[in-house]
Amino acid sequence: MEDIKIIEVKRSILEDNDEDADKLREELAAQKTFLLNLMSSPGAGKTTTLLRTIEKLKDELKIGVMEADIDSDVDTRAILGSGVRSIQLHTGGMCHLDADMTRQGLKEIGSEDFDLVILENVGNLVCPAEFDTGAVRNAMILSVPEGDDKPLKYPLMFEIADVVLINKCDTLSVFSDFDTEKVKERIRMRNPKADIYFISAKTGEGIDNWCNWLRKQVAEYKENI
Amino acid sequence: MEDIKIIEVKRSILEDNDEDADKLREELAAQKTFLLNLMSSPGAGKTTTLLRTIEKLKDELKIGVMEADIDSDVDTRAILGSGVRSIQLHTGGMCHLDADMTRQGLKEIGSEDFDLVILENVGNLVCPAEFDTGAVRNAMILSVPEGDDKPLKYPLMFEIADVVLINKCDTLSVFSDFDTEKVKERIRMRNPKADIYFISAKTGEGIDNWCNWLRKQVAEYKENI
Repeated sequence: MEDIKIIEVKRSILEDNDEDADKLREELAAQKTFLLNLMSSPGAGKTTTLLRTIEKLKDELKIGVMEADIDSDVDTRAILGSGVRSIQLHTGGMCHLDADMTRQGLKEIGSEDFDLVILENVGNLVCPAEFDTGAVRNAMILSVPEGDDKPLKYPLMFEIADVVLINKCDTLSVFSDFDTEKVKERIRMRNPKADIYFISAKTGEGIDNWCNWLRKQVAEYKENI
Repeated sequence: MEDIKIIEVKRSILEDNDEDADKLREELAAQKTFLLNLMSSPGAGKTTTLLRTIEKLKDELKIGVMEADIDSDVDTRAILGSGVRSIQLHTGGMCHLDADMTRQGLKEIGSEDFDLVILENVGNLVCPAEFDTGAVRNAMILSVPEGDDKPLKYPLMFEIADVVLINKCDTLSVFSDFDTEKVKERIRMRNPKADIYFISAKTGEGIDNWCNWLRKQVAEYKENI
């Protein structure tokens, strides 16, 4: 079995995370590396969505993945099977990553080798939204079984998301009280600018639209730096 | 439409939350009030499970409910329809409740009037596990769509749970990779003493077993104080 690289990232002692996140964005721009911060509740399908995304984009872009969790390496094992470089970040019990913790991971994975590094943040709809990781874009996943009321309850997460993926759409007939129009209204109430895509990482539905969005973001970033 | 009582609970300035939680347990014991702390990921089914629980137990026990959320009052509205007293606690962006925030809610709801007060904590598998609320028992819900690997990734939540409810069992055929034996093994690895019940708050399956557990806990508590 392949060795999993596990990095114990240490909590930053810096007082101003926002300032440090801006600094990290400059460091990444110098490397021409696009960092995507992917957030969701536990079990919303971050890793499965990543596997689909890698499958679609790995021939066009050099992709690296950093899997953050409090414990375990199950997600990193899953990603390694896709053929891209992947490392596991352990947060020592912490509920989120800040910019310096993200930087520790980027150094270990060797971010200068990649066009696109995806950080899978800790599964949590609250705390990760409060800490800028230094990413160029924030993506979040809301899964159908969680319900269409989540933008009402977790405002900040939806406010800071540049794109919202509504995953597990193949189960809309099972979770028939999930209202696809209402959820869009509620997301737009929090964040009128967020792009919204309905996907099923399981069946592949909607993955092309999401990958087109991501491809375009990376291209525009590389053109403008 | 009925007026919803919304309490803005303030973060505690106490340094030692564990000590304060023990003090709160003594205060509740003097009132003979059993406090249950109910935790889960966003959308795992805390409120629907509560509605089933209230329906089953409200003729035997005087029940009050405190709904904690960062924003919105959707859960309190749902509970009020069941005929029991319910208040909404807003955490001011905080990802969890500590003992003093819980005390502020108990004062507002009038905990001395109840046999059982249920605190529905903020939907989050990380932070609420770190803060003792002063509850007599901790219950947590893991829902089938979240996956059977959650005890590997969120160790502390499973370590501190006295009982784990595995909800949305009516969707086991849809989420066919959820392994009911493996999830039990993984929960027991974290916490050999936790009781485990498979339920569906939607269909009512398993609710009797869970309510028997809760009824017994409350009875034993009342006998022994």
